[in-house]
Order: sequence, then structure tokens, then C-alpha cells
Amino acid sequence: MTDQIEKIVDIIFEKIYARFKRSGYIEIEASGRHVHLSREVIDKLFGEDYQLTNIKALSQPGQFVSKERVSLIGPKGQLHNVVVLGPEREKSQIEVSQTDAKILGIKVPVKESGKIQGTPPVEISANGKIVNLNEGLLVAERHIHMSTADAKDLSLRDGERVDVEVNTDRPMVFKDVNLRVSDNFDTYMHIDYDEANACNLTEKTLGLIVKK
Amino acid sequence: MTDQIEKIVDIIFEKIYARFKRSGYIEIEASGRHVHLSREVIDKLFGEDYQLTNIKALSQPGQFVSKERVSLIGPKGQLHNVVVLGPEREKSQIEVSQTDAKILGIKVPVKESGKIQGTPPVEISANGKIVNLNEGLLVAERHIHMSTADAKDLSLRDGERVDVEVNTDRPMVFKDVNLRVSDNFDTYMHIDYDEANACNLTEKTLGLIVKK
Repeated sequence: MTDQIEKIVDIIFEKIYARFKRSGYIEIEASGRHVHLSREVIDKLFGEDYQLTNIKALSQPGQFVSKERVSLIGPKGQLHNVVVLGPEREKSQIEVSQTDAKILGIKVPVKESGKIQGTPPVEISANGKIVNLNEGLLVAERHIHMSTADAKDLSLRDGERVDVEVNTDRPMVFKDVNLRVSDNFDTYMHIDYDEANACNLTEKTLGLIVKK
Repeated sequence: MTDQIEKIVDIIFEKIYARFKRSGYIEIEASGRHVHLSREVIDKLFGEDYQLTNIKALSQPGQFVSKERVSLIGPKGQLHNVVVLGPEREKSQIEVSQTDAKILGIKVPVKESGKIQGTPPVEISANGKIVNLNEGLLVAERHIHMSTADAKDLSLRDGERVDVEVNTDRPMVFKDVNLRVSDNFDTYMHIDYDEANACNLTEKTLGLIVKK
């Protein structure tokens, strides 16, 4: 394709996709295991004032994949090459799937991102350094990031719970999904790899938001 | 608890559970990766006329966990200590999750158990022997085994598709579930570990069958 044709394809796609969005369809992304690190933990693992290296932008504005990797160490097993997402956060948060939790040998609760109170401790290592976090290990609750404009179009409010239906060859309804609305969000639903595998999510899969 | 009290508890439980069943509630079991082997493959891996050793009965009458274990070998990775279920079957069938499929590095379709036509080949090893199966590797389609009596109570027919709702802390509706009815079945729903993790299935979780 020439650049011009590619541009035309994109414009047509966006126009059609906008219609789908107004009918409640939403793009779903599967999040693999990853960590968000605090300044203090970055200092300890990578060195004082170390800056994470942005290698790829994520769908949410300002969020990125860094080139830095860590290992998670549990009583039963370890997970290596775990991606660090940027930018740094006030509190470190380690997001794994239940499959990962079983490999580590730690009972991990399902929590909304950011709600780390009461989550279990975990050991993180990188560059031969080890940090013991007192808390921060969680299975992220499935959620939707939605722009204020899209929420207005669909008459949805921040904090509302919705159901999302996917019509793959393993069709499923994700019930009671946490909807977060902000001017800073692009509209995407996030699930983890257990959930993505359970419904055979592909890149082309759209979810349909069903109000409760 | 004395034996007598335990017996009384069981009777009360069964009485209450029978009510739940008549309202469409169903016990859900998560199936881990496992293999069913043909006589020919058992001969090759374990020796001529070798008999599988029954170490634990499964929920479906006559089906059992054997003490025999095999490894699955894929282009990207291997899965060890995979349980062999008995009794032997006419055709070998290897059931894995999508998580497992990614470890093996093989694209595996979701198929109804027994429908192995067109499924990918896989290498199995045990006791230093290797067998190359031409086909038989699948992700089992979620399904319900239901006794004829229970199906009659719920006005359900063999081959019908139903939705099953689970109200865990990751609530979900499994849509389009394959319902199989037979005099030889005890009533249970079977899902794999990706699906069990995606809805945080516990031993106490009951599904609710919703007719379409």
C-alpha cells in the first residue's frame, strides 16, 4: 500500500469504528504481568535517579513500556523478564494473573489498580539487587478506561458497573466491570491473560458494553 | 465429627443441593491438562498390554486418574508430568489450555472432546519413549455432562446450548455452553484452568444455567 492509500484506509476505519463505539462496542486489550515501580524501588534496583527507558507507548496517554525488566520471587517459583511500565508511580504495584500467582505460590487477591492496601508482599530482583515489598501484589480487576466524550455518548458515568459481552469462539460475558471515566483516558477495556485465554481474545475482538 | 454426624451432614447437604439443582445450579469442575491414550500409544510408551493404574475416580462414572504421567513436546517448550486419564480410548486426545498451547508454541483450536479431526499433531514422551501423534491436540470446549433425570427436571435436551452464570468475585457468564445428556453422566460442568482462573472459581462455586 502506498502511504496515501494507507491514510484513506485509516480514515474509513476510524469513521466506521466511531459508529461501533457509539453502539457500545469497545476495544479490549490483554495486559500481561507487569510492575509499576516507585522512585525508591527504582533507586534500589537500578541506581540513584535512574530513569526508565520508554521503548513503546501504551494505549493510555503518557503510559509506556520501558526496556527495564525485573524478576518476581515467590516461595514456590519465580517469574523472570517481567516488564516495568512507566512512568514511575507513588507506590509500587505488581500485577500478575492467577496462573502467575500459582507459579509464585502466593494467594493473590483481585483488586482495583491502585488499591494495594492488604495485598501480599513480594520480592523483586534486578541487576543482582533485591527489594522486599511489604505489599503491592495483585490480580488487576478487569476495567474500562473511557474518555469523558465517549462516556457522554453512551450515557455512562465514572464508577458505574457494566457487563461486557464478547462473541468469540469462546463467547463470554464479563459481568460487573469497573468503568473509569476521565479526560485523560482513551477508551479501552483491560483484562488479563487468564481472561483473554478464557474467551480466546484476538486483536480483532470487540466487546459490547451492556448496561445493567 | 463422628461418622454419624458426618452422615447426617451429607444427607442434609444432598437434600439442599437437590433443590439448588432443580433451580438450574450446577457444580463446576476445572480440568487441568491431561491426555487420553489409545491402546496403541499405551503399548508404545509403557509396554505391550500395559494397564493404566487407577488411583482416583473422576466425577464421570468409570473415568479415572491414572498414576501414569507423560510429557508433551512442542517447538517452543515442553509440559512435564501431564496426567493420563483412564480408561484407554479408541483415539488419543491431548487436552491443554491456551496458556499451555503458548508454552508449547502450537496454535491449538477449541474443539468438542472427541472431535479431533483437523487438530494439530503433537509429540508425547514417557519412559524415554517418544510417540508422534498425527492429530489429537485440542483445547476442550467448555461443556456440561448432565444425567437424563436432571435434564428432564430442567426441560433441557442433549445438544442444546445454554449460558452459565457464575457469581464469584470475577463474575462471568459462559455463553453457548455445549450440553450433553446421557444416562451415563453425573451432572457437572467442565471448564479449563484459563476459564477457572478468569472467574476465580473455587470449590464452592456453583454455576447457574440460563436457558437461551
